[in-house]
Amino acid sequence: MAAGGGVKLSLGELAEHIGAELRGDGDRMVERLASLPRAVAGEVSFLSSARYRMHLAATRASAVILAPRFSHVCPVDALMMENPYLGYARAAAALNPQPQRAGGTHPTAWVSEEARVHASAWVGPQAVVEGGASVAAGVFVGPGCTVGAGVSVGEGCRLVANVTLCHGVRLGRRVQVHPGAVIGADGFGLAEDQGRWVKILQLGAVDIGDDVEIGANTTVDRGALENTIIECGVKLDNQVQVGHNCKIGAHTAIAGATGIAGSVSIGKRCRIGGGVGINGHIEIADDVHITGRSVVAQSISQPGVYSSGVPLQETRAWRRNYLRFCRLDELARRLGRLEKNST
Amino acid sequence: MAAGGGVKLSLGELAEHIGAELRGDGDRMVERLASLPRAVAGEVSFLSSARYRMHLAATRASAVILAPRFSHVCPVDALMMENPYLGYARAAAALNPQPQRAGGTHPTAWVSEEARVHASAWVGPQAVVEGGASVAAGVFVGPGCTVGAGVSVGEGCRLVANVTLCHGVRLGRRVQVHPGAVIGADGFGLAEDQGRWVKILQLGAVDIGDDVEIGANTTVDRGALENTIIECGVKLDNQVQVGHNCKIGAHTAIAGATGIAGSVSIGKRCRIGGGVGINGHIEIADDVHITGRSVVAQSISQPGVYSSGVPLQETRAWRRNYLRFCRLDELARRLGRLEKNST
Amino acid sequence: MAAGGGVKLSLGELAEHIGAELRGDGDRMVERLASLPRAVAGEVSFLSSARYRMHLAATRASAVILAPRFSHVCPVDALMMENPYLGYARAAAALNPQPQRAGGTHPTAWVSEEARVHASAWVGPQAVVEGGASVAAGVFVGPGCTVGAGVSVGEGCRLVANVTLCHGVRLGRRVQVHPGAVIGADGFGLAEDQGRWVKILQLGAVDIGDDVEIGANTTVDRGALENTIIECGVKLDNQVQVGHNCKIGAHTAIAGATGIAGSVSIGKRCRIGGGVGINGHIEIADDVHITGRSVVAQSISQPGVYSSGVPLQETRAWRRNYLRFCRLDELARRLGRLEKNST
Repeated sequence: MAAGGGVKLSLGELAEHIGAELRGDGDRMVERLASLPRAVAGEVSFLSSARYRMHLAATRASAVILAPRFSHVCPVDALMMENPYLGYARAAAALNPQPQRAGGTHPTAWVSEEARVHASAWVGPQAVVEGGASVAAGVFVGPGCTVGAGVSVGEGCRLVANVTLCHGVRLGRRVQVHPGAVIGADGFGLAEDQGRWVKILQLGAVDIGDDVEIGANTTVDRGALENTIIECGVKLDNQVQVGHNCKIGAHTAIAGATGIAGSVSIGKRCRIGGGVGINGHIEIADDVHITGRSVVAQSISQPGVYSSGVPLQETRAWRRNYLRFCRLDELARRLGRLEKNST
Repeated sequence: MAAGGGVKLSLGELAEHIGAELRGDGDRMVERLASLPRAVAGEVSFLSSARYRMHLAATRASAVILAPRFSHVCPVDALMMENPYLGYARAAAALNPQPQRAGGTHPTAWVSEEARVHASAWVGPQAVVEGGASVAAGVFVGPGCTVGAGVSVGEGCRLVANVTLCHGVRLGRRVQVHPGAVIGADGFGLAEDQGRWVKILQLGAVDIGDDVEIGANTTVDRGALENTIIECGVKLDNQVQVGHNCKIGAHTAIAGATGIAGSVSIGKRCRIGGGVGINGHIEIADDVHITGRSVVAQSISQPGVYSSGVPLQETRAWRRNYLRFCRLDELARRLGRLEKNST
Repeated sequence: MAAGGGVKLSLGELAEHIGAELRGDGDRMVERLASLPRAVAGEVSFLSSARYRMHLAATRASAVILAPRFSHVCPVDALMMENPYLGYARAAAALNPQPQRAGGTHPTAWVSEEARVHASAWVGPQAVVEGGASVAAGVFVGPGCTVGAGVSVGEGCRLVANVTLCHGVRLGRRVQVHPGAVIGADGFGLAEDQGRWVKILQLGAVDIGDDVEIGANTTVDRGALENTIIECGVKLDNQVQVGHNCKIGAHTAIAGATGIAGSVSIGKRCRIGGGVGINGHIEIADDVHITGRSVVAQSISQPGVYSSGVPLQETRAWRRNYLRFCRLDELARRLGRLEKNST
């Protein structure tokens, strides 16, 4: 079973397209991608991790994208490059060109007369574009999306479906936003007044750079006074929460279900695993990796790999250790006393 | 105060319907369900846990569904069965038959001419059904739902409202999807290229079996090459995230806010608590129970109950233990040295 | 760069409005708010934490809202009050009056003939109001919102966009609901029947008090038999999950991505951090504070501040401690034996 397959390419064309060196028949035609164990003739596969090497010998793919050091054990044509996973990404794009929809507005959409929508942009069924919004060339506004008042959507953006862009949000070029994402909802700003909460109007907006991708049901709050900022090339997975006045540095990737409180500053090229929690006002340096489900309660000033958490165990065993944690400090003190007495 | 109440049934009819043995007046009419302390005449209650037994003596319900071993302390008519909670579920269904809406398309919906919608299916206000989609008999497409291109929705499915089914997704029969759920958004697939991310097209789809239920704002990503698979009878609560190429085995139930990274395989009949995190490429056997907020960083090959985490304490006490954790390994080594010296 | 700025006020007017004592020129006009380092002439700033005191000396704001004890180091006009953060909230509201939209129904909305919508309420583009719903005076139903059958929306509520209110939900007055929120989806109620799940109909509703705010993509489930209850003044951030039959006490605030299982009772004036997990059937007293990412597995009967979790470390160091946790109980027993032998 293989996916996609819009066009056929020769291995020679594909090698050139993905930047690989071909060892094999440059005229052989391929049209789909598949994993090593499932690929059949006419399909290209890839080996991006030594972990899957055992599948190489028996593959029936027409060709395999792999690192040069594995080419001698490749039983079929080889597309050799140092980063085969990148080769896979490029091959997927080459074999599956995404159709560009002609511009226009669906009859069931509503576009304010005070909005500017480029002739090459598409506004899909049941979508809304409010007054003062600007939608640039080649933009795709999918079904049910809401583009709020004064929003700016840059060239080539793609709002897949049921996306909400609140008033005044700015998207750069080629930003992709997946269904259910909400950009620019009010931040969680409250002042206490004698046991009651007074709402703090959220007067900033959200500023999103070029080539950002935002996952399904992810939320990015507008700033309180200044803007929340997502720099170029940032990738947010599904169900990520970004609080007001956060700044996320260029080319940082954040996996699903991570929650980031307000006024957090994250550096460039960081990699943050799924389900991570980051407290408010934290600063994280460039090139920091944080493993999944970690909790960040203090700023991180040095690049590196960081983790927190305790292991999963059978519940019966875990419960004993769990209860001991409540007395860990006491246990350390008892050990200190013993050490003192034994010297 | 009691809920629902569409029809009246005699206790005899109800006993037969839920599979209970009646001790009492088979002609007594009941029409609603209520909890033990709140029920009044005309209402049925249930005792599903010994924890609530103290409410039994004073109940004013007309009848109580309970295990035979409690029937001797039941002051009113008793509907006896080994699994009273199942009896409650069946009684709720019997007393509250869900109306079936007549087929048709609301005037404000948009259904592509290239979609096939069965005459008995309902497409509600502001909904969208795109080209190539197929909507089977008895389906309910609620307000604001989007059924993408080529989607297949099986007989008797119910999309409550504002559900997004992305292109090519397949739903079996009687699948229920709650508002805000997004099925088939792109998985989080990225290849690195000199500090920038290159998107990997997500060419697979999502394949959902019969009798699955998917909670509000839950997200299930489409596969990269092959499909993400949710087998029959799986129940996902709200705000669950299921990454690309996961496979969730039949009759597994997953509580709210659980995050599952990509390519995770979960067995059949598992029970996974709320807020659990599961790392990518993990395999979990059949019949595994994982308690709430656990983190699964390694595969689980044996059925059983698993947990992780540390206890909640007053912050002052907790902070001391928290800091000790940073030196737990050192503490263990110090203990080892003491033991060595003391022998 | 400053935000908002709808009206100009004199410092005298502003002082009166926010309840501050003015030291300076009561006739000076201001029109915007900005942070201390960014404010320029015509703007008001505030000092709400000693942490930002270093920005005070160089500020170019026209006036600063601050506590009286800092007024002697304020180089510009001072608006003195004990709670400057509250002053900021009030000043933001005073300088940015929110326009009230005239009542009416957008031509692309659909309002059932069996719904009652007050003449002063606005129903926006692509919105849906179903039969039996009642929408009170001054309500704003934003684009793409769904107001289900029999829903009651109180005076002055604001549903920003793409909000889903399921059938029978009741909102008090001045409730704000942000995009993607789902109120009243089915709770996660399942009874087991020989390895399969039987759905328990969720027959209760959701009852929301006055002045509640509900964040983007937050979900509040309807009750199984009785209602889920959110009392007056509760503030829920984004992506919070509230299970069926929870009761959240008045003026409690809950930060983003917190997950609350079913039948949890939370007291009044609690503050619950982001990403917290609360197990089912827990009871939490009034005035409890829980820090971010804590897990609550037992009821809390006393007011106070509570936490759980372990620190973030460099992964290499963390892994050693992580593994030791599996033997923490054994370690404590070994220590006990040593202590016994050493006496």
